[in-house]
Amino acid sequence: MKIQFWSVGKQHDAYVKDGIVDFTKRINKYFSAEWMLIAAPKNAASLTEKELKKAEAALINAQLQKDDYLILLDERGKSFTSPDLAQFIQQRANESHKRIIFLIGGAFGVDETIAKRADHVWSLSTLVFPHMLVRLILSEQVYRACSILRNEKYHHS
Amino acid sequence: MKIQFWSVGKQHDAYVKDGIVDFTKRINKYFSAEWMLIAAPKNAASLTEKELKKAEAALINAQLQKDDYLILLDERGKSFTSPDLAQFIQQRANESHKRIIFLIGGAFGVDETIAKRADHVWSLSTLVFPHMLVRLILSEQVYRACSILRNEKYHHS
Repeated sequence: MKIQFWSVGKQHDAYVKDGIVDFTKRINKYFSAEWMLIAAPKNAASLTEKELKKAEAALINAQLQKDDYLILLDERGKSFTSPDLAQFIQQRANESHKRIIFLIGGAFGVDETIAKRADHVWSLSTLVFPHMLVRLILSEQVYRACSILRNEKYHHS
Repeated sequence: MKIQFWSVGKQHDAYVKDGIVDFTKRINKYFSAEWMLIAAPKNAASLTEKELKKAEAALINAQLQKDDYLILLDERGKSFTSPDLAQFIQQRANESHKRIIFLIGGAFGVDETIAKRADHVWSLSTLVFPHMLVRLILSEQVYRACSILRNEKYHHS
């Protein structure tokens, strides 16, 4: 199973980049893992919030394959504990998915069509984080989940 | 009102340092804010979990003043939304506290005496984060809270 992290927006900010690169590298010991950054549409500034989300949805859909398992990060989703997340990833692997995708939407969230396509919606916290920090938190948590599945020392509850 | 961030452990890891320094600087436009890192006891490796927490508690107590408002970060605490946190900080300012302290405990949490001394216990998330990442998340959230109180653009819900 491959793990992909998709995020709408710019390259990683300097203040999170090293951590993201490091945790993603560590995840690669368990699953093939990589980031795909989806650049916002060039005319984004001239679009309404709704139009922007539609345009971003088109870019996301162009990359999505039918059998991808899509996990949307959204504050309206359900929360996990870290062991829950580990269990969740194991279940996806057991179901023989080729790819699971963790998707961080754009500045205004995602279009309704993407929310409906999502197989799971996950809320990291009741707090709102900047997207760059969400990328770092996400890569750390997925690494932690992998280490829990292998019974390694990184996580202690 | 002064805001202090206390954390038991080493200097900031490289992968979070720039972000912590930047957000803390930004908080300083609203409140005087600084970090105090409390080095773990030198004989930490030879102590049991309970002894270590007792030793750390002594170091924390040595710095605490009677009228400090102490907010302990602990997964067993209550969660905030980001606007809740802003409101909470405003209320502390209204009550004319000289210092509010956000305390991140050691590797095994804090001794019961510190938990009892805490005026508030805050859980960032149902997820477990590494302490270094908690420092970054905390400084970003307190900056966000300040920007909410000033009605600035940084936060949009």
